[in-house]
Amino acid sequence: MDEVVRRGDSVYLHAWDDYETFTIKLTAADTSGVRRTYVRAAGPEALERRIHHLSNLGFDGHWVEDEVGLGPVYLIADPDGHMLGLYWETERYQPPSGLEPALKNQAARYPGRGANVRRLDHVNFLAADVPGNATFLEDGLGAMRTEQILTEDGPPAAIWFTLSDKTYDLVYSGDWTGSKGRLHHVALATDTREDILRAADVCLEAGIHIETGPHKHAIQQTFFLYVWEPGGNRIELCNAGARLMLAPDWPVVSWTPEERARGQAWGLETIPTFHTHGTPPVPTR
Amino acid sequence: MDEVVRRGDSVYLHAWDDYETFTIKLTAADTSGVRRTYVRAAGPEALERRIHHLSNLGFDGHWVEDEVGLGPVYLIADPDGHMLGLYWETERYQPPSGLEPALKNQAARYPGRGANVRRLDHVNFLAADVPGNATFLEDGLGAMRTEQILTEDGPPAAIWFTLSDKTYDLVYSGDWTGSKGRLHHVALATDTREDILRAADVCLEAGIHIETGPHKHAIQQTFFLYVWEPGGNRIELCNAGARLMLAPDWPVVSWTPEERARGQAWGLETIPTFHTHGTPPVPTR
Amino acid sequence: MDEVVRRGDSVYLHAWDDYETFTIKLTAADTSGVRRTYVRAAGPEALERRIHHLSNLGFDGHWVEDEVGLGPVYLIADPDGHMLGLYWETERYQPPSGLEPALKNQAARYPGRGANVRRLDHVNFLAADVPGNATFLEDGLGAMRTEQILTEDGPPAAIWFTLSDKTYDLVYSGDWTGSKGRLHHVALATDTREDILRAADVCLEAGIHIETGPHKHAIQQTFFLYVWEPGGNRIELCNAGARLMLAPDWPVVSWTPEERARGQAWGLETIPTFHTHGTPPVPTR
Amino acid sequence: MDEVVRRGDSVYLHAWDDYETFTIKLTAADTSGVRRTYVRAAGPEALERRIHHLSNLGFDGHWVEDEVGLGPVYLIADPDGHMLGLYWETERYQPPSGLEPALKNQAARYPGRGANVRRLDHVNFLAADVPGNATFLEDGLGAMRTEQILTEDGPPAAIWFTLSDKTYDLVYSGDWTGSKGRLHHVALATDTREDILRAADVCLEAGIHIETGPHKHAIQQTFFLYVWEPGGNRIELCNAGARLMLAPDWPVVSWTPEERARGQAWGLETIPTFHTHGTPPVPTR
Repeated sequence: MDEVVRRGDSVYLHAWDDYETFTIKLTAADTSGVRRTYVRAAGPEALERRIHHLSNLGFDGHWVEDEVGLGPVYLIADPDGHMLGLYWETERYQPPSGLEPALKNQAARYPGRGANVRRLDHVNFLAADVPGNATFLEDGLGAMRTEQILTEDGPPAAIWFTLSDKTYDLVYSGDWTGSKGRLHHVALATDTREDILRAADVCLEAGIHIETGPHKHAIQQTFFLYVWEPGGNRIELCNAGARLMLAPDWPVVSWTPEERARGQAWGLETIPTFHTHGTPPVPTR
Repeated sequence: MDEVVRRGDSVYLHAWDDYETFTIKLTAADTSGVRRTYVRAAGPEALERRIHHLSNLGFDGHWVEDEVGLGPVYLIADPDGHMLGLYWETERYQPPSGLEPALKNQAARYPGRGANVRRLDHVNFLAADVPGNATFLEDGLGAMRTEQILTEDGPPAAIWFTLSDKTYDLVYSGDWTGSKGRLHHVALATDTREDILRAADVCLEAGIHIETGPHKHAIQQTFFLYVWEPGGNRIELCNAGARLMLAPDWPVVSWTPEERARGQAWGLETIPTFHTHGTPPVPTR
Repeated sequence: MDEVVRRGDSVYLHAWDDYETFTIKLTAADTSGVRRTYVRAAGPEALERRIHHLSNLGFDGHWVEDEVGLGPVYLIADPDGHMLGLYWETERYQPPSGLEPALKNQAARYPGRGANVRRLDHVNFLAADVPGNATFLEDGLGAMRTEQILTEDGPPAAIWFTLSDKTYDLVYSGDWTGSKGRLHHVALATDTREDILRAADVCLEAGIHIETGPHKHAIQQTFFLYVWEPGGNRIELCNAGARLMLAPDWPVVSWTPEERARGQAWGLETIPTFHTHGTPPVPTR
Repeated sequence: MDEVVRRGDSVYLHAWDDYETFTIKLTAADTSGVRRTYVRAAGPEALERRIHHLSNLGFDGHWVEDEVGLGPVYLIADPDGHMLGLYWETERYQPPSGLEPALKNQAARYPGRGANVRRLDHVNFLAADVPGNATFLEDGLGAMRTEQILTEDGPPAAIWFTLSDKTYDLVYSGDWTGSKGRLHHVALATDTREDILRAADVCLEAGIHIETGPHKHAIQQTFFLYVWEPGGNRIELCNAGARLMLAPDWPVVSWTPEERARGQAWGLETIPTFHTHGTPPVPTR
């Protein structure tokens, strides 16, 4: 990703086919983790209706207008305390003069280096109470649950939600520390699996910690690579192939603990840190 | 694709991740071309509202219930005469016993052969009057125009429409013969560009006519291969990478004749038959 | 691979770009493991010189003429007891009528299915005494050592040898059981890494045991997938990219135990069975 | 490729897995074309024997010692006037401090950008008299002819020669202008076909002229992209998959004019400039 602008303690990064001003905003801080996750409405009326609907359900936020490239943002916390920012007004990304893309149906110049990430794909939160957040996501935001991990006798350990035709946009996984508001990972989408294989070599050379992958998830079938950026946050590079959520009446796919124990699609055992590393770090008991 | 069932003169084929009963139905006939293009509604009420809305605009159809795996279908013609079938009720694909997929979030067993197509991607119609159909698509069906080819001084020569988060689902191109109801091509999506390169070798060995590609379209940026199936219809194997239509306020991208003349993304000249071959064949003047 | 012919208890398989009659011969037996590994000479005189040279070093074998597609074969055992078959005369593969490849610089019709393996790549033997075999390989066969794994204070634990411009053709790894003549794996080369990713899905669907991968070796940098065929032998699907051994004076690359402990190229830990599964199985103490 | 050093009017470039000091040397000049093509011997005695053998055939050159990273070089012209430099002594590439590769069996740090070329692959000369050069190549240099293009009734129009286990290292094509000593193209090898697809986008963005491709040659089956570097020389990015020349008794594959007329492997017509653009440019009659 390329740096777009710096503002105060923040650096704004842009993936090459993001039509908006920035894709990820990095802010200097004492610790790691995620702050706001912005979600764009389908239109100005849709945004109003959504806020009204959320309020009726008892989910209230407030308006701010403090972000580069965005108009008014309705800040609202999920039950676990992650901040979402709902908005409609946005500025389109403008490539710097002399760096316009060759194809005009593309936001920025194709970089052709590293992981070559095209756009943001999804955010996976950690939450103390996964089902409690499901109500907010499904009833409040109108998200659709596509897959989930069951526990022996309790509530789901993780739920995948979609707000689009992708098979997931937001994921909630149980936080083993019981903490609230933490991050499991942020995922960026590449055009090909080869981009991810190449990124693995690039990370190897750059001394970036590769946690696990490249491999294919059984859940959602995503081809993945997990790395830890220098600040400690887990970043996923992912490719979904041509998989989309095309069924409006998709029956939720539930994975039992036994199925989960089989590891990833091609038999790779899930690495222990995948269940113990979240950001920001919290004291372990 | 695998054969699912035969019924009368028809063979039903299924791509390995289609959640519905069949992906393409081939019917023995005296000539080539496309018959019905089925479009599923987002829900039963959405279907009712859509039909009511279309009727208000003067677009009327009628109900049939005659298709394998589908409930009632509302058959309606676009202004050019292509038959669309709107429906809600559908049967989920059931893999034959012993051939269940290893991953339960997938419809059928992964074939790992040939082009390995995952699902239907889009249909490209030919039409005598492209803008005339745009009214039906945009005002009637609620489609969004994402890209188009302009002519020197007349109406668009081709328009790409989306009904989803894909950047296009239906395309209308001007029919140079002035005929109505014809087909330019049907496209099937693969997970990777490598699947398409491999398909090229498979088609070469099988004696299937490769018309053009593999290459990348400038318009919509799709990686493509065009072949003619033995009956004469043009089939595209396509891969969009991670490209999606995520902007609800996407400004239509218009390509001028000069831009079109530059050929495909990497400079490949558009092959003449791409402008002269449609199905069914019609007498040329 | 395709079956070429059956003879007695044996089935002969052919990879699509092997110019010789067969690539692998499977023979029904009570247990698994490797029998003969055939190595073709550069010419008839080269074969004679090689045999003479081996005899001078005290390595003697004997002639047989008993193999489909091969002329006289000089059978000779390496010090560990693996049987090598040196030969010159061979019959070119003839595709069955109607199945000739579209491109005449290719042996057989391109299959476009499964792992799509193009040719045999290498054989990795297990040996009780790795350095003892190195003398036979280097002084006797004229092989070149390209990489090796060192032990704390003893002899190399594994050595990679090349007889060509590939970076390795034969590998000897220490047999932890102290047995002789066993096999670690046989490797088949694919054209692309994508062929290997696809093969992983095909094996998943077919219930073939995937031992580890897809991933990239640090040693030799090969992209790999290890599976166990139903008889128990480990098969590697491998892709070397454009890597070749182009330096006649290549300094052997030695990997220390500490370096080895870092796992594969992208951090994957070497799976325990990689060090405990060889064929045929032997009683463990 | 990365710049290694500048010396006088020359810039030395290095591909990331070239074990020698440099891969390509660019020298400022009034026109384009190729100067020396260096070919390393298998050893010091092999070099002496080769020079002696060439001299016996009437091919004589002279020694120079004027090149960065190389010891004495025996300069000798092919009959068409292309300068070859035969040598044994070479300095191994040393990565700059702090830029050592993560894997020690690799020459330089993996770049992960652009075409990502791993090494030089081959050089394709133009020659006034193709068969005249074949004598020098086959009898003199010991090259093996692997494929060729026939003409209606005359000598081969192009011949592919190998000096290794690759299927070709040097190619001679007839120069339609009757000129001597010109270049058709220099080819660089990538690890994957995807590297080449990505390079096409990178060239598109950079305004580099893409002449033809990506596609697959029927002859030698190489996956290719041809671009013209700013100085006018044609550069091929190529990938051979797992294809190697493993048969010492390979029967030459000959392509007739009719076969050639079918275009490249998947039906792409050979672009006219492929037959009319060589470097340096010469006045056309």
